[in-house]
Amino acid sequence: MEAERLQRASSPALDEILGQQFNVLDRGFIRVVDYMGNDSSIVQAARVSYGKGTKTISDDEGLIRYLMRHDHTSPFEMCDIKLHVKVPMDAWRQWIRHRTASVNEISSRYSEVKDERQQTLPDAWRLQSKDNKQGSKGYLEQSLGENLTINELELQQHAQQVYQERIDLGVAKEQARKDLPLSTYTEAYWEIDLKNLIHFLTLRMESHAQLEIRSYASLIGEEIVSRWVPLTWQAFKDYRLNAIKLSAQEIEIISKLIDPNRVSEEYLNSLAQQQGLTTKVERAEFIKKVRRITGE
Amino acid sequence: MEAERLQRASSPALDEILGQQFNVLDRGFIRVVDYMGNDSSIVQAARVSYGKGTKTISDDEGLIRYLMRHDHTSPFEMCDIKLHVKVPMDAWRQWIRHRTASVNEISSRYSEVKDERQQTLPDAWRLQSKDNKQGSKGYLEQSLGENLTINELELQQHAQQVYQERIDLGVAKEQARKDLPLSTYTEAYWEIDLKNLIHFLTLRMESHAQLEIRSYASLIGEEIVSRWVPLTWQAFKDYRLNAIKLSAQEIEIISKLIDPNRVSEEYLNSLAQQQGLTTKVERAEFIKKVRRITGE
Amino acid sequence: MEAERLQRASSPALDEILGQQFNVLDRGFIRVVDYMGNDSSIVQAARVSYGKGTKTISDDEGLIRYLMRHDHTSPFEMCDIKLHVKVPMDAWRQWIRHRTASVNEISSRYSEVKDERQQTLPDAWRLQSKDNKQGSKGYLEQSLGENLTINELELQQHAQQVYQERIDLGVAKEQARKDLPLSTYTEAYWEIDLKNLIHFLTLRMESHAQLEIRSYASLIGEEIVSRWVPLTWQAFKDYRLNAIKLSAQEIEIISKLIDPNRVSEEYLNSLAQQQGLTTKVERAEFIKKVRRITGE
Amino acid sequence: MEAERLQRASSPALDEILGQQFNVLDRGFIRVVDYMGNDSSIVQAARVSYGKGTKTISDDEGLIRYLMRHDHTSPFEMCDIKLHVKVPMDAWRQWIRHRTASVNEISSRYSEVKDERQQTLPDAWRLQSKDNKQGSKGYLEQSLGENLTINELELQQHAQQVYQERIDLGVAKEQARKDLPLSTYTEAYWEIDLKNLIHFLTLRMESHAQLEIRSYASLIGEEIVSRWVPLTWQAFKDYRLNAIKLSAQEIEIISKLIDPNRVSEEYLNSLAQQQGLTTKVERAEFIKKVRRITGE
Repeated sequence: MEAERLQRASSPALDEILGQQFNVLDRGFIRVVDYMGNDSSIVQAARVSYGKGTKTISDDEGLIRYLMRHDHTSPFEMCDIKLHVKVPMDAWRQWIRHRTASVNEISSRYSEVKDERQQTLPDAWRLQSKDNKQGSKGYLEQSLGENLTINELELQQHAQQVYQERIDLGVAKEQARKDLPLSTYTEAYWEIDLKNLIHFLTLRMESHAQLEIRSYASLIGEEIVSRWVPLTWQAFKDYRLNAIKLSAQEIEIISKLIDPNRVSEEYLNSLAQQQGLTTKVERAEFIKKVRRITGE
Repeated sequence: MEAERLQRASSPALDEILGQQFNVLDRGFIRVVDYMGNDSSIVQAARVSYGKGTKTISDDEGLIRYLMRHDHTSPFEMCDIKLHVKVPMDAWRQWIRHRTASVNEISSRYSEVKDERQQTLPDAWRLQSKDNKQGSKGYLEQSLGENLTINELELQQHAQQVYQERIDLGVAKEQARKDLPLSTYTEAYWEIDLKNLIHFLTLRMESHAQLEIRSYASLIGEEIVSRWVPLTWQAFKDYRLNAIKLSAQEIEIISKLIDPNRVSEEYLNSLAQQQGLTTKVERAEFIKKVRRITGE
Repeated sequence: MEAERLQRASSPALDEILGQQFNVLDRGFIRVVDYMGNDSSIVQAARVSYGKGTKTISDDEGLIRYLMRHDHTSPFEMCDIKLHVKVPMDAWRQWIRHRTASVNEISSRYSEVKDERQQTLPDAWRLQSKDNKQGSKGYLEQSLGENLTINELELQQHAQQVYQERIDLGVAKEQARKDLPLSTYTEAYWEIDLKNLIHFLTLRMESHAQLEIRSYASLIGEEIVSRWVPLTWQAFKDYRLNAIKLSAQEIEIISKLIDPNRVSEEYLNSLAQQQGLTTKVERAEFIKKVRRITGE
Repeated sequence: MEAERLQRASSPALDEILGQQFNVLDRGFIRVVDYMGNDSSIVQAARVSYGKGTKTISDDEGLIRYLMRHDHTSPFEMCDIKLHVKVPMDAWRQWIRHRTASVNEISSRYSEVKDERQQTLPDAWRLQSKDNKQGSKGYLEQSLGENLTINELELQQHAQQVYQERIDLGVAKEQARKDLPLSTYTEAYWEIDLKNLIHFLTLRMESHAQLEIRSYASLIGEEIVSRWVPLTWQAFKDYRLNAIKLSAQEIEIISKLIDPNRVSEEYLNSLAQQQGLTTKVERAEFIKKVRRITGE
């Protein structure tokens, strides 16, 4: 529409940390290599879709929160970020299952694998959770952990020596690597759009995600996304990370817990305002939800 | 794992209606052409993932509901369905925005376009909604609608005559079509996996979806998915279609509506059981949610 | 790897035209809104994958050509571009079939549709091709075309008047639009990575693509991609746009056309060098192909 | 279009081997679990697209070959196959990079990992290729290989013992697995449509693909796809696997190798017919290619 000379959208707070290495685990890291777009790019794309319709939502923050709340996710695809990550193969196996990203991983067919593994400290061996078949809970006592740590180091050294022996004999790198431990670090460029990054963070910052990948996800969220697109980051926390979903059955039950004396329009409106539901639209939506719960 | 001769998974209730035409709008339809998998295929895929871990959830229904509740969506990708649809281009423009499907649409570069448009009856002209910039609410009075219907027919005939004139003069079909109205019907084969179909239904069965595409989506849900994968269909309704989400702020507010005398473990458990939270796991999850709401 | 402060990768030649409107058809346009990456970003991503392995290919140009030649497409995903396009719905229907892009289209549910259609001039009516069922060849004589142009304008005005009448009576915008002609212009933000853009250009710059979308694709290629990533653009033309593929059977036939006196190693090498196969690797690959053709 | 009762499309030759285990490597396998569609489904989808336009290509084989030759790949998306695979994690790391498939992998967070690794026999240690940085060429002499095989077994036993020790002490499975060797077998359900499977086979049956994944890919092609969709399989071999591509520069060079006395229309036509270019369309396309090469 406008025809004047454009500058690329930028995010000064993210520019501040471009290329800077954030450490994760014992030898892993994350660095922002490049990015496209900022909070305003999301608003701009949404305004294309909605045209004049967006005038009712007066400001950028309100619009971004509206988009997040209603799962209108396409404008978030208009932002992209490219990270350089170093991560143990074990965590990378989970990471790579997110298919909607672009990846260039270092190839151990081309290059010799570096002698770098993730090592677990004596006090960091986690116990199998009893109620969660796939989780951990609490830590092994340190005296036992010390042994495990020593044994791990020995195994990792053994694996490295076997790898090196093969390389020295001229075995192809693609085959020499076949018995490397999953704790071996790999590196990759990983590029993803903000919509899909939000989905990644929703799953991987969640308390059931494995600690290792959760450490990476939390860092991406708290150190990177928070700087890059602060309005989106806040909306993500409010409407995704810290939200809960009630099923049809749970709605029925909750209705029975509610004190019927506290659901007047006026009271709900005043509570909503107190709790930061600043737009009229959001307050109306909330009251509608309450009415759905209470069945009126 | 097993090595015996397999039969393909089938869904007898869906086989009953294979190829049968379900009418939508004035000339549109949906037909199931082919499919792969059934409720058990989802269970089977999940059991591969979880291995022995699934033994705790004793039956297929419980497992499917667990998957849906926790957004473990990958097992639903193991079912696919192929539909033959006939739909006005206007609705098709929305439909095709769902990118995770396979499409073969009839090409109007190859074949002449049939003289078939979606016509609106005098009592079916919807009024612009006041509060929803993109929606409709109520109907135009019929006396006015009659005029609109006559004028529509006239325009559609005019467009057809212009199209035919071009064809008769030897104009290329790819160009002759350029002024056809969006109400013109098109046909396509549309294939999608169940995970993505569920996402499509969530968005398009929703009350804010435009009536036309909502008619197609509802039919796919109620007539087709309900027969094909009945356990999944029920879980979809309970955990998606009829669920609500509470933001971090809304959780705070709801906490103030709850009667503190009604949240004892015992009472919650008995309510949960009454309302059909049949598994211990789901009841525990529910009580956890209540505790998150009440902040204990 | 490096830890110093980074700047975002940029493409000065593309910065020059950021936001500038390139006209297409009678009222369409394309503008670059934002982008990420440049030729060096592709090289950088490839070097991550190959590690030391890339040292043998000495320069960026050689590496980019190698990647394109061998369909190692993932490094091209590391560049993204966002365009603002204005295009008739008819061409947009084809455009949107490319699923691996992000789209925010102006919504005619939210906003009234502007009275803008693509009009065909008297000398621009194309004749149906005889041998290509889906193509056009040559033009209708202008005297006949004049009539078609007048009739088109009349139909477009008729459609506009019907649309306006509905709007004036308060019909919902989502329904009022249902008989708009496919020649109506729409606008969108369209974001795509370079790998998928190359695929789009391969299909849509091709001589069988419909003239309208071909006009957009050619402009994107020649005015935008050529400035943005000039090395990639040249490689695209050499290895995709102007390449040909020979089937197993065609290889057999070609072998019978080749003069056996002209396939000595030396001669082939000298020809290859003359024709700009500058790297040793590419010349060796070429000679291998010739040997496959001649069956030696 | 037709309204009669349908049966699902089936492939009797594939039904014969449904569930049957094909062994790969020392302990790996592939089994077909389910599928949708057959060669006719591709034809059916293409005929929807082309409408009457397909009448000129008289038979199914001709049409499928036409689609493959012209990269009209969307009809191939109308067929899907679901495989149960057992594969070393090392090969699985490459496999999983194909993002357009659905996957349910056995989770080693849920279940203990079985003591099963891919072992390399004394005569199967491959040497690093000199000219191909990422490949192998020839084999290590067996006397040296024997040592490597013994050392591998020792390392694998060591790793297993470390894993078991952790499990026995109550360490969480998600953490206990962290030093397992990449040679450890994993299992998964893998579902993919035929278009994307063809792409997978093109890359992974190719001579530069690593032997291990090439073994799986070749088996999928030769034992499974060949039975499932025999016409597509033949077309794949002719137009993809055994085809070659000539760049703009290579076209120039080839033109200089061609004997000008052998390119008459008549001669080319007769050669084309002899070599099995059975349709008139394909012969015409071929002659056009020759003219492009010779620059006439």
